[in-house]
Amino acid sequence: MKQRLSIVKIGGNIIEDEQQLSHVLELFSKVEGHKLLVHGGGKKATEIGNKLGIEAKMTNGRRITDAESLDVAIMVYGGLVNKNIVAQLQSFDCNAIGMSGADGNSIKAHKRPVKEVDFGFVGDVEAVNAKNISNLLNAHFTPVFCALTHDGKGQLFNTNADTIAAELAIGMSTEFETTLYYCFEKKGVLRSVADENSVIAHIDSKKYNQLLQQGIIADGMLPKMHNCYHALNNNVKQVCIGDSTMLENSSSNFTTLTL
Amino acid sequence: MKQRLSIVKIGGNIIEDEQQLSHVLELFSKVEGHKLLVHGGGKKATEIGNKLGIEAKMTNGRRITDAESLDVAIMVYGGLVNKNIVAQLQSFDCNAIGMSGADGNSIKAHKRPVKEVDFGFVGDVEAVNAKNISNLLNAHFTPVFCALTHDGKGQLFNTNADTIAAELAIGMSTEFETTLYYCFEKKGVLRSVADENSVIAHIDSKKYNQLLQQGIIADGMLPKMHNCYHALNNNVKQVCIGDSTMLENSSSNFTTLTL
Repeated sequence: MKQRLSIVKIGGNIIEDEQQLSHVLELFSKVEGHKLLVHGGGKKATEIGNKLGIEAKMTNGRRITDAESLDVAIMVYGGLVNKNIVAQLQSFDCNAIGMSGADGNSIKAHKRPVKEVDFGFVGDVEAVNAKNISNLLNAHFTPVFCALTHDGKGQLFNTNADTIAAELAIGMSTEFETTLYYCFEKKGVLRSVADENSVIAHIDSKKYNQLLQQGIIADGMLPKMHNCYHALNNNVKQVCIGDSTMLENSSSNFTTLTL
Repeated sequence: MKQRLSIVKIGGNIIEDEQQLSHVLELFSKVEGHKLLVHGGGKKATEIGNKLGIEAKMTNGRRITDAESLDVAIMVYGGLVNKNIVAQLQSFDCNAIGMSGADGNSIKAHKRPVKEVDFGFVGDVEAVNAKNISNLLNAHFTPVFCALTHDGKGQLFNTNADTIAAELAIGMSTEFETTLYYCFEKKGVLRSVADENSVIAHIDSKKYNQLLQQGIIADGMLPKMHNCYHALNNNVKQVCIGDSTMLENSSSNFTTLTL
């Protein structure tokens, strides 16, 4: 029987709030068994980029990662945010080790093909190195991934953190029974956006399609849910969406997704 | 019999020259057996700090690391420089994994005690976690250390890269027969600073004291040599000082230091 692996992705809003981040990291440190963390960067990269005089470039309303913006992402996601999370996790006795996709060749990607838009240094994930990541887990490390990938030829890429979490969950499913947790500011998938207590406890494929048709899953939840079902369709056992209380054993108020 | 471990420290001047850095990393990737890399940050941190409007603070001619400067060090050393080195090493088939002292709790430090000067967030090394680093080496990773340490309570520190290299070499000597390589822009310890070809091939403790008395070891070489003998006095087998050709098997033109 495969061992269990929990993959927890924490969103930008959590990272921006020092106290909340500390609380989530403490909860994460208590999650039992093999686990790994994925984090976004929040607005810190934009803030530092602005201070450095690097403007966010947009084409057709889509953000472009040019060479300068990539450097900022590497500094902020791979440096400032990642190392501070690792240091905090160590203070909670969690043996964290910070990772980009280049570290341990863990996530290989290629530059997103140019169609209408050239996104610049944005990477689409090609392969997760489950063997190297398993070696870390089996040596009692807890990998902490920032949203950077590489092409194996020396080039780093910016990659969406939700996507990284889903691809890691899929890739690790060859060796582990994997559960993916999307931890963000809401209690889960809500029936009504205005009502924080309208959490839908369980969604399966049939219900997912219903919710899509009813327009209940919309806006920012669309790509998130797409990532979830992409993961579930590729051997991930279960996906959970909710706020930090989801990481507490006693909590039951979040959304569980299955096929 | 203990296995051999090569610890290579590359200096700031190498890091600032893209082509030279690439060449050194290619040579490093070919070094046989267990190995790890330590890098400084060069002037990039000062450059980014200036752009962010953070001035280098000095007291009595000594550089102070305040909270803002520490953030820059974390971004530049732990992020930009470290991740780009890791990505390049991966392109040379070296399974690099980027590390600060917080990652894998590998280098614990405490804030430098305040005497005449409060250096701010500068860490003096307390302990190297040889077990965790060995676990990485035995799992076929090549750790790449930037010059950051942590206190185990969530605080990161700036620490001199030469010191980190020496402390890693000392700490790892419990499990490995360790050789420390200081790779910089000169061919080795020179009898005459003006003559690049006056490399002293071998220095032992007796000769070290002679060279000190003769004033041949002076200026920037003083702390470097102090680090070397500190390492040799604490079970490091051998220290080598020279330029990148030192990493080639065929080269013999560098300085070897022993007790």
